[in-house]
Amino acid sequence: MIDPLSRWAAYGEKPDYLGLMTFAGLPYTEDPNELDGVDVAIVGAPMDELTSDSPGTRFGPRAIRAASCAPGPHLEVGVDALRDVLRVVDFGDAPVLPADPVRSHEAIEATVAAVLAAGAIPVILGGDHSIAEPDMRAVAAVHGPVGLIHFDTHTDTGATVFGAKLSHGSCMYRLVEAGVVDPRRYVQIGLRGYWPGEEKFAWQRERGVVSHFMHDVRKRGIEAVVADAIAHVGAGPVFLSVDVDVLDPAYAPGTGTPEPGGMTSADLLWACREIGSSVELVGAEVVEVLPDRIGSRDITALVAERIVRETLTGVALARRSSAISQLAHSSF
Amino acid sequence: MIDPLSRWAAYGEKPDYLGLMTFAGLPYTEDPNELDGVDVAIVGAPMDELTSDSPGTRFGPRAIRAASCAPGPHLEVGVDALRDVLRVVDFGDAPVLPADPVRSHEAIEATVAAVLAAGAIPVILGGDHSIAEPDMRAVAAVHGPVGLIHFDTHTDTGATVFGAKLSHGSCMYRLVEAGVVDPRRYVQIGLRGYWPGEEKFAWQRERGVVSHFMHDVRKRGIEAVVADAIAHVGAGPVFLSVDVDVLDPAYAPGTGTPEPGGMTSADLLWACREIGSSVELVGAEVVEVLPDRIGSRDITALVAERIVRETLTGVALARRSSAISQLAHSSF
Amino acid sequence: MIDPLSRWAAYGEKPDYLGLMTFAGLPYTEDPNELDGVDVAIVGAPMDELTSDSPGTRFGPRAIRAASCAPGPHLEVGVDALRDVLRVVDFGDAPVLPADPVRSHEAIEATVAAVLAAGAIPVILGGDHSIAEPDMRAVAAVHGPVGLIHFDTHTDTGATVFGAKLSHGSCMYRLVEAGVVDPRRYVQIGLRGYWPGEEKFAWQRERGVVSHFMHDVRKRGIEAVVADAIAHVGAGPVFLSVDVDVLDPAYAPGTGTPEPGGMTSADLLWACREIGSSVELVGAEVVEVLPDRIGSRDITALVAERIVRETLTGVALARRSSAISQLAHSSF
Amino acid sequence: MIDPLSRWAAYGEKPDYLGLMTFAGLPYTEDPNELDGVDVAIVGAPMDELTSDSPGTRFGPRAIRAASCAPGPHLEVGVDALRDVLRVVDFGDAPVLPADPVRSHEAIEATVAAVLAAGAIPVILGGDHSIAEPDMRAVAAVHGPVGLIHFDTHTDTGATVFGAKLSHGSCMYRLVEAGVVDPRRYVQIGLRGYWPGEEKFAWQRERGVVSHFMHDVRKRGIEAVVADAIAHVGAGPVFLSVDVDVLDPAYAPGTGTPEPGGMTSADLLWACREIGSSVELVGAEVVEVLPDRIGSRDITALVAERIVRETLTGVALARRSSAISQLAHSSF
Amino acid sequence: MIDPLSRWAAYGEKPDYLGLMTFAGLPYTEDPNELDGVDVAIVGAPMDELTSDSPGTRFGPRAIRAASCAPGPHLEVGVDALRDVLRVVDFGDAPVLPADPVRSHEAIEATVAAVLAAGAIPVILGGDHSIAEPDMRAVAAVHGPVGLIHFDTHTDTGATVFGAKLSHGSCMYRLVEAGVVDPRRYVQIGLRGYWPGEEKFAWQRERGVVSHFMHDVRKRGIEAVVADAIAHVGAGPVFLSVDVDVLDPAYAPGTGTPEPGGMTSADLLWACREIGSSVELVGAEVVEVLPDRIGSRDITALVAERIVRETLTGVALARRSSAISQLAHSSF
Amino acid sequence: MIDPLSRWAAYGEKPDYLGLMTFAGLPYTEDPNELDGVDVAIVGAPMDELTSDSPGTRFGPRAIRAASCAPGPHLEVGVDALRDVLRVVDFGDAPVLPADPVRSHEAIEATVAAVLAAGAIPVILGGDHSIAEPDMRAVAAVHGPVGLIHFDTHTDTGATVFGAKLSHGSCMYRLVEAGVVDPRRYVQIGLRGYWPGEEKFAWQRERGVVSHFMHDVRKRGIEAVVADAIAHVGAGPVFLSVDVDVLDPAYAPGTGTPEPGGMTSADLLWACREIGSSVELVGAEVVEVLPDRIGSRDITALVAERIVRETLTGVALARRSSAISQLAHSSF
Repeated sequence: MIDPLSRWAAYGEKPDYLGLMTFAGLPYTEDPNELDGVDVAIVGAPMDELTSDSPGTRFGPRAIRAASCAPGPHLEVGVDALRDVLRVVDFGDAPVLPADPVRSHEAIEATVAAVLAAGAIPVILGGDHSIAEPDMRAVAAVHGPVGLIHFDTHTDTGATVFGAKLSHGSCMYRLVEAGVVDPRRYVQIGLRGYWPGEEKFAWQRERGVVSHFMHDVRKRGIEAVVADAIAHVGAGPVFLSVDVDVLDPAYAPGTGTPEPGGMTSADLLWACREIGSSVELVGAEVVEVLPDRIGSRDITALVAERIVRETLTGVALARRSSAISQLAHSSF
Repeated sequence: MIDPLSRWAAYGEKPDYLGLMTFAGLPYTEDPNELDGVDVAIVGAPMDELTSDSPGTRFGPRAIRAASCAPGPHLEVGVDALRDVLRVVDFGDAPVLPADPVRSHEAIEATVAAVLAAGAIPVILGGDHSIAEPDMRAVAAVHGPVGLIHFDTHTDTGATVFGAKLSHGSCMYRLVEAGVVDPRRYVQIGLRGYWPGEEKFAWQRERGVVSHFMHDVRKRGIEAVVADAIAHVGAGPVFLSVDVDVLDPAYAPGTGTPEPGGMTSADLLWACREIGSSVELVGAEVVEVLPDRIGSRDITALVAERIVRETLTGVALARRSSAISQLAHSSF
Repeated sequence: MIDPLSRWAAYGEKPDYLGLMTFAGLPYTEDPNELDGVDVAIVGAPMDELTSDSPGTRFGPRAIRAASCAPGPHLEVGVDALRDVLRVVDFGDAPVLPADPVRSHEAIEATVAAVLAAGAIPVILGGDHSIAEPDMRAVAAVHGPVGLIHFDTHTDTGATVFGAKLSHGSCMYRLVEAGVVDPRRYVQIGLRGYWPGEEKFAWQRERGVVSHFMHDVRKRGIEAVVADAIAHVGAGPVFLSVDVDVLDPAYAPGTGTPEPGGMTSADLLWACREIGSSVELVGAEVVEVLPDRIGSRDITALVAERIVRETLTGVALARRSSAISQLAHSSF
Repeated sequence: MIDPLSRWAAYGEKPDYLGLMTFAGLPYTEDPNELDGVDVAIVGAPMDELTSDSPGTRFGPRAIRAASCAPGPHLEVGVDALRDVLRVVDFGDAPVLPADPVRSHEAIEATVAAVLAAGAIPVILGGDHSIAEPDMRAVAAVHGPVGLIHFDTHTDTGATVFGAKLSHGSCMYRLVEAGVVDPRRYVQIGLRGYWPGEEKFAWQRERGVVSHFMHDVRKRGIEAVVADAIAHVGAGPVFLSVDVDVLDPAYAPGTGTPEPGGMTSADLLWACREIGSSVELVGAEVVEVLPDRIGSRDITALVAERIVRETLTGVALARRSSAISQLAHSSF
Repeated sequence: MIDPLSRWAAYGEKPDYLGLMTFAGLPYTEDPNELDGVDVAIVGAPMDELTSDSPGTRFGPRAIRAASCAPGPHLEVGVDALRDVLRVVDFGDAPVLPADPVRSHEAIEATVAAVLAAGAIPVILGGDHSIAEPDMRAVAAVHGPVGLIHFDTHTDTGATVFGAKLSHGSCMYRLVEAGVVDPRRYVQIGLRGYWPGEEKFAWQRERGVVSHFMHDVRKRGIEAVVADAIAHVGAGPVFLSVDVDVLDPAYAPGTGTPEPGGMTSADLLWACREIGSSVELVGAEVVEVLPDRIGSRDITALVAERIVRETLTGVALARRSSAISQLAHSSF
Repeated sequence: MIDPLSRWAAYGEKPDYLGLMTFAGLPYTEDPNELDGVDVAIVGAPMDELTSDSPGTRFGPRAIRAASCAPGPHLEVGVDALRDVLRVVDFGDAPVLPADPVRSHEAIEATVAAVLAAGAIPVILGGDHSIAEPDMRAVAAVHGPVGLIHFDTHTDTGATVFGAKLSHGSCMYRLVEAGVVDPRRYVQIGLRGYWPGEEKFAWQRERGVVSHFMHDVRKRGIEAVVADAIAHVGAGPVFLSVDVDVLDPAYAPGTGTPEPGGMTSADLLWACREIGSSVELVGAEVVEVLPDRIGSRDITALVAERIVRETLTGVALARRSSAISQLAHSSF
């Protein structure tokens, strides 16, 4: 394991634009044995061969790392998730291969499985949304069928997309059909646009999938929608899947299938933190980042990094309050 | 007529990034005889010689087409305007000429007139806002003086702009003075910034033009403002003119005279649909798109495409409810 | 003094994209003797050597000037601050030097002092936020310790940043410690993200600094927060410091340390105008503009220009009502 | 068939930035029956799923069309290939499908076969270089094993690339192994960089493939190298394959695997014309264009367009001299 | 007159990225009376309404100024043209007007005439090439019909372009027809591409215009071509017109109608210096700069600046040797 | 040490766009103890505070790593320097600090010294050219005063730049004055432009510095110039310093002070290889890379990577021939 911070140890922090490029400047390892005691491991999944529009999300993981900042205390909730509460490492990229999505999915699944085997929560950086398949397959292999909170413009529940079974638009269909995702504990948030059709929504409703459209978010407010989602998934393992195109293109222009009329960053970041602190999170992914620049000035990679960070801040809040609660109990 | 979809007929849809580049992948014709039975025809007006700041909107029509996606059901209102309700074709670009705005205006007027002669609604893609002149002259030649709902940062009612009579900043003045636009049925929405002065607003008020400033939109909400606008234009033919700079630059950075403090995409898209379903729409234009990229990643071209789509979704809603209503009556 | 407008005198206005590039096309002078009777002088401070992330704000002043538009009446409040109420000139850039921030700070302080010596209000265009030091030192030398309203993602109150005392992240600490800013009249608005820690906030609270976090702005609304801020600074000289990263990256992507979840342009512009009309403004700065383009299509430089303009519109409103009030009194 | 020129018929030419976007503004058809009498048909092959580095060449065909200019007389050789000598049409894009390169290859092969069936020369616009497989398979099905002149940085003769058999780096290996390309009539020009190794070159040499490295081009001059290549392929059908990365990145920055030290545009354009006029050309492709912009300002798409045009100018020269020669003979 | 250097007087030079933005940081005036004793005056002509493809050259003059560097000794020929030999000022932009090319031409002609009236050489920064008309009309009004050395991809001798008489493609036709340019002393260098046709070249040849095509430059070398050109124009007043599209797009990507296969910067810069030192230069223009960035990183604006500088270095060399020669004579 | 290749071990190579981002995908370590047996160590020096024009070279090292490709056999000379001959590692970035160039120089010097202490050749990636000071100070501390071959537009021998002693324009002056560089073994190649003046060249000549101007390179050819340079530095330790602005902006647009009329990539890459194989190389640096993009599509970062690679290929050639020579001797 290499800690990029160590050369700057005297200062306690490292400028973000230099040193080994890892998520949040956190320690880096590719060795599963070094995951012992780790709470969360970041995994890159740099593939985009199953995209149906603009490709380029294979550069997403690097861009998210390049846009990330050092750990620090969250100014609203006062916890430094990455330094004080959770032990987080960057576990590197899954060994995906260009032009071979099947083997890339296998590589991703194996890498996520290694994280889970060590007892850590995997957080996967996409890559196109097709990675949801290996991500959640690996998680369900350990935890059983998962609940799913899914932020997206699109349902991604096509049986096929332009005739292809494997696609960034069919992953959720396949995960439900394969029993990996429990459709009765599956909530979609942020849907809008012109796809899919009523037949597909009927399929979803029959299985119990709950859809919060973007007009619902606007009308009811993000707090109400997220509260419903948390209540709906209830107890049991939950996976969080965030497609950055749930954001309005103003907030996330760097994605392959942007759709106007989306969420604000403030709403999404709050939602991720709230979910992170309220459900039994067993894994998360942030996908469809299609970057233009190096560093924090790529605003889509930047907000993707913050999606991870807010989610982990939520997890840290939950752990801290659980620790306090346990402390309270044990003090008897 | 060429239908770009036909080579992909087996799939029922065509990937947006390939095939003949037409609006929404719809059939293309330049032959007025093929407009029979068409409800709506898209017309490009790629000129920018009458711009007073950054030029480049001559590339707007191509960019809007490149950013457009296939028809599909609207996730909020459940109608697929372009496939199920309306027959829409791409009628190509008006034969404008570089460096000759007078002849370009003639070409635009003639092309729009051909659409109207076929009984179809013209939807014109700009180009600078000066095209409002030929657009509405052609419409008024058929329908008489039109009501106008005009989304914009600027009133575009200069008598001259830097001494020039023809300008993207003088079109509305000229249309009112020429009797093409009925000023008592003319509503402006989204005005802000530092132009024009009180004298010009006095001219507007004297003629009955109603102005909803951006601070009105923020204070009253878009629903109230649009309801007022629809009520004000009342019965009779209405033209919808949308300058994308009415949006905040965050939502539409690709325009020649951006002005901070503007509308959100969600508000504007809702407004266009509401207007499309509530007024007697005889024509529409979306102008001042100054693109940077090819495809849906140009977020300004993308939102411009959605402005057209939401407007037509509104029209489709009106037709469908009208059809249901007629059906109800005829079922007696 | 050169008035860029004069060659276009026949039209009363100059197209923004040509002629001598000054702020708002206003007259330009580098001669302190020509500041007599001037109400406000714009000063560029093109340095970025004290940046801790992306550099490039040295191009900020030119970009803000390139993005500026001609004077004109404010469509909401009906005053043309730059033409009718205030006499504003562009006093050029302070003679900063590359690679020598200490001498650059001296140059900035001397240039701002020259403005103050003429009785004018300095408005400084950054440049990185470290220029707050020379800016406010010059102001305090004339007016004594100043109240400060500070819009920013970050507190900028590090004692050091990566070990460096001079930094765009330590300026406010140094100004408070030096007695230049009165901490009991110092209000921060828009804080978010992951820096600094509790120890630093404790330091702030002990001295009386008031912090309105971004979540406060979202919950309470900008009106309430700004009203509190104005009340808190109360009577006495006030400096306004606006770091454009207080805006969400959607609204101001061109900055070195963007942070999602920030303010909208509409809120910030209103706030600046409100503050400009409500406090005893003795100076202002807009900093951390890192431009990409020439002209108004750089949306960050554009909004920075409007921040200045709205602030001055506020000042003009105050002067006008004060003039009316004086008139009322003198009419006795 | 639609002729984009017709609306501008009065002028004899159409501005490049408007009207139906076809190659060189030429007539467009998707109907094989309309290929009768056509000499050359342009086919788009917008796929990039078999790329091993930066994707995005799926946007190449649109970008090349957007960058193309109207037909006109070649200023050096005095022939207007597209207007006076050859009948050229744009046959549209092959119906490729995202995320399914196998079916996309089938679609490309079928589309190219349709061109050949009509007796026309296919010119294919890529797309990644993997399209060489369907392109030449279709050609060889008609003409038998083809000679190949191949401009590229890379040999593209990997048996696999990162374990994948189908790849933009394995196409030439597969075509040779399949007997589609006759290795004794296969010439590579412009090789440089660090791939492949000696083993692969041994494989090539054993089969008779001739390689002109970039250092050969620099030392001997393009004229000598091209003369050798033309002599080497000799009589019989020849396919021309141009990967734009053969150009130095200064001349073609828009490609997925650029390599410094490449050819100049002037050399490459001359070479294509010379080859076009000297061999029995049965097909051509220009691949690996990864565009950034719309229109002629994308300099890579622009030079790709000129590669096609110079090649066709060469073909036209050959036809004209052949016609003259025939005329001379028949005049006896 | 304002000298941007004065605030940095202690250092003898000013960093290029700050201070008043003038050509080479030279003194600025808009007052014709201050041109007394000036050898050369720079004039901006920021118009692009007569462009037939991509617009945006209205931003050229600002971009060239932003890209310019301080005066200094030429490392090859050892003369500091701008500081030691010639007195050069920036005379600002001609008061052009958007959307009114006729009046803009008048404004340019008047501004250039003012320079000439003061006995200075005008160097005009475009803007589209149509400004050649007012530029040379003003020059010929003083000096009579001029010889012309014209670097360009295109002849710009269309009688009309898309039917328009005023165009950046018709200026040279009109100047010859009007007797402003003496066709027997008119040399074109760098022609290539596919326009215009033989008829137009016949018109040129009949009048004595000499055309050096790009293939001539490649075959004969720039030295031979320039020597011929200088000999051909011979004694008498000469105007130098440089369209940056004469450069290969690799060297000048920022222009509206780029054409591959062009000149290198080294050749063009040498040619301009050689011409500047060898002919009786009465005026010069550099046109068709369509910039993307602020500052020296816009490589097209940068090379345009150097075109001016090398031309003036040539003029300085001639003056110096003439002075030495005069000195030699007078020392008798 | 982490070897990014290991996860892809089955394929023997790793796609460049993923996995741990190290130079050429080589093993990474920050531990000096792991440098045992290493021939060459790559060191990043990401600082730009001493730049006199556009900053941003602090992103250079990351960009060069992102643009690098896997090891492989050199197609011209047939050696795989990075895999077969030399043991090369990425030693990470020196722990520089923003806004504190003095401490950053110390950090760079210490990091380079650690490489030298292990007996390896340091290759430093800039960063601005000021890093030449710590780079060569560290080298000279081990090897004594060094010979220097310096490719650059500028001499960088200012005693001060805008009054600053530490600057990217004064480093070579300071190194000569400090006795670190032996001026009689110091050769400059590629000089052009307008700085510095004769006085400075006199200072250089007096000390024996040899300057090959860009016009010398054009006239004599790169081979002759490099042969002279190699002969001039002769035996003894040599440092190679390459400022990418020695390239023409067409080839290296991403740099802070570009100057037209520069070298081609082909010439520079050949020169670096020739020098690497011909002198006693004790260190090298590539500086002034100011990137725009992630990955190989940043053509300046790409060519910078190749500069390193060609230099090391030269070193490998020398070692191989030396080994063969030794073998020959030892076989007696």
